[in-house]
Amino acid sequence: MLRKDRHHRRQHLWPHRCGCVTIKVDASHQMIITLTTDFGLSDPFVGIMKGVILGITPSVQLVDITHDIRSYDILEAAFLIETTYGYFPEGTVHIVVVDPGVGSARRPIAAVSHGHRFVGPDNGVLSAILENEAYHIENNSFFLKHVSRTFHGRDVFAPVAGHVARGIPVQSLGPRIFDFIRHPLPKPCREGARIVGTVLRVDKFGNVITNLRRTDLGSEFTIRVAGLPITRLCASFSQADPGQLFAVEGSTGYIEIALNQGSAADQLRVARGAEIEVETVSANH
Amino acid sequence: MLRKDRHHRRQHLWPHRCGCVTIKVDASHQMIITLTTDFGLSDPFVGIMKGVILGITPSVQLVDITHDIRSYDILEAAFLIETTYGYFPEGTVHIVVVDPGVGSARRPIAAVSHGHRFVGPDNGVLSAILENEAYHIENNSFFLKHVSRTFHGRDVFAPVAGHVARGIPVQSLGPRIFDFIRHPLPKPCREGARIVGTVLRVDKFGNVITNLRRTDLGSEFTIRVAGLPITRLCASFSQADPGQLFAVEGSTGYIEIALNQGSAADQLRVARGAEIEVETVSANH
Amino acid sequence: MLRKDRHHRRQHLWPHRCGCVTIKVDASHQMIITLTTDFGLSDPFVGIMKGVILGITPSVQLVDITHDIRSYDILEAAFLIETTYGYFPEGTVHIVVVDPGVGSARRPIAAVSHGHRFVGPDNGVLSAILENEAYHIENNSFFLKHVSRTFHGRDVFAPVAGHVARGIPVQSLGPRIFDFIRHPLPKPCREGARIVGTVLRVDKFGNVITNLRRTDLGSEFTIRVAGLPITRLCASFSQADPGQLFAVEGSTGYIEIALNQGSAADQLRVARGAEIEVETVSANH
Repeated sequence: MLRKDRHHRRQHLWPHRCGCVTIKVDASHQMIITLTTDFGLSDPFVGIMKGVILGITPSVQLVDITHDIRSYDILEAAFLIETTYGYFPEGTVHIVVVDPGVGSARRPIAAVSHGHRFVGPDNGVLSAILENEAYHIENNSFFLKHVSRTFHGRDVFAPVAGHVARGIPVQSLGPRIFDFIRHPLPKPCREGARIVGTVLRVDKFGNVITNLRRTDLGSEFTIRVAGLPITRLCASFSQADPGQLFAVEGSTGYIEIALNQGSAADQLRVARGAEIEVETVSANH
Repeated sequence: MLRKDRHHRRQHLWPHRCGCVTIKVDASHQMIITLTTDFGLSDPFVGIMKGVILGITPSVQLVDITHDIRSYDILEAAFLIETTYGYFPEGTVHIVVVDPGVGSARRPIAAVSHGHRFVGPDNGVLSAILENEAYHIENNSFFLKHVSRTFHGRDVFAPVAGHVARGIPVQSLGPRIFDFIRHPLPKPCREGARIVGTVLRVDKFGNVITNLRRTDLGSEFTIRVAGLPITRLCASFSQADPGQLFAVEGSTGYIEIALNQGSAADQLRVARGAEIEVETVSANH
Repeated sequence: MLRKDRHHRRQHLWPHRCGCVTIKVDASHQMIITLTTDFGLSDPFVGIMKGVILGITPSVQLVDITHDIRSYDILEAAFLIETTYGYFPEGTVHIVVVDPGVGSARRPIAAVSHGHRFVGPDNGVLSAILENEAYHIENNSFFLKHVSRTFHGRDVFAPVAGHVARGIPVQSLGPRIFDFIRHPLPKPCREGARIVGTVLRVDKFGNVITNLRRTDLGSEFTIRVAGLPITRLCASFSQADPGQLFAVEGSTGYIEIALNQGSAADQLRVARGAEIEVETVSANH
């Protein structure tokens, strides 16, 4: 997905006498840790997690994906990390913490997928990336010394991610497991030429992200959202006329309902979970 | 409280013969990329851009200016980057993306000004910094392989900024252009002793940032905003009495209308674009 | 605009005989600066401060604690930095700027506590960490050249923090002082078996953080908030039944009033400063 050319930090040498030395700083050791939570930015939760990480691996690159996941909304986090992680270099460690069950028996887990590492609670936040390599994080030598029952982002996931970024193999974190929890993202239902989809998310601009793909729409289609018919597919937001609702293949690869320089969600009054009906006319009709 | 084991960045040596070596890590190669967008922080857009950048230049310093530009508000972005970039070291790469025309024929451009580099759409977001050195970004070897028509922040501007931060000269991005779009920031109109200005922005504290300068006010003045007269110029916010509206030379160098520990904008009920009338009494009257 | 002296990451060499060179990049020189302000993220204030810092110390790790302190709320900042700084490695420099008196006679100060360094206005924001080592920041060779009277975060605190992170001892900043301002955080009042506490803060989830400690509650207790009695202490959020208010020892070590997957603050309609009454039954009754 990304070009893999990497920047090796340049070093200049001034050799004295004999002595020609080539030095390579392995820039791939500038590890990246991303953070995706429902913690918000008004409290110090995220800053505290970063402090813990930097105490373990001082030169890591820390990147916030978002901390505005709706409180306790596991599926929203699962969807966001799925559509995001692939834009980071392989080897990145992703912390995903939406954790209403913190302090209960729910397990902390680590997973490996497509060369990326993930840590989070075993409650479905990693649903979309869990393939088959997952581990129950049990080795508390990688935790903070005191583990609370209310903030495992700080006490478990941040330090574990720091250690993984430092080079600790995920296999050292605990035993491999196969019974991890997966909540599949809702899939569209097809009945003949009719498809029923759902709204996965509304973005900041009011674009309504559906779980439909371009191929679901065929050559001609009518999408019905909140009773309103949408029949136009645009290639870009600005291709549409002002005030006209249209469909567009969004940047996540899903079909979005949009309004040129306006909020489709406000106009349609839909939110996540709303139903979307599509009637398609196949090309050979 | 924290385990103190630390990660020492590994270096690999290939010494030839005897070697007494002095090594200089050129710290100026810690390049900086800033990001200014209307993407908000609730969606993963900004995190994704950072992932793309770090895939190209892993050790860059990433700094968010703001992502809370009002959706599609090109002039707000133009104003913010103008008042901000000069506080960064020369050589910094600034990404400015407010891009209602993404996917249309509008060009992606790069500009050089006062030793800083800027990338963004050619729609006026770079109005305030564009001088004469600008380039049409055409060289798609610096883009992501698949370029969508809905998210050039990710597909074009982030990777181009990453490559520029790595050392690619802006001249390699595409041909020089001279017909870039500039929307000048609104300037005050002077008619004798009367000046009509405008509100450029309201900040988080409710301070009303105008497009007036200290020199516009002369030695005595009456500013009228929303019908209310303001005649006092304070040197600092705390110099004013509680509840009293006053003018102050703000940190951007523009005159602001403020209220000590209160929101002038709320009290005056003004927002960006509101008109401000100034009557000055010149010193020799 | 900025002083251009730069920090070159130190490297130590131990040459063994001819041609065998061991290099240690001292990773502890990846210094950390944290930022806690009431500046919000919609304006470029925080980004500008980071630009100033990076002009002085390019390879520092910058971490936002929060910028959503309520405007001018000195005690909120004091509380947040107290509960946060200890999760960062020793040597971290913490900038804390809630500064209604900017530009007045209030002093800029630096403090050292438990191996951490702090800079901020002498107005109480450092109340909770000030012990006895504090300095009046007077040495303007560490300031920006032009110091405004409206934005010392940019002109004084950011550059001073940058220089301290680079290795300037806090003792060089100015004379030691002993008359710094401290506003003690409100302490619970005990009258026999009755304790009157207060709400320190409401977090993003609606958890009501009090100034009570676990030991204040004894073995049996009734907490009264807004007239409602709370008698249950849970070890974790998920231990409680839905809809039931309960007490929990929060991640800061203070007792919080919470609601499993709901907002206790909304249900109780309490905000910071609200009174909390506790009646305890001591174990030997």
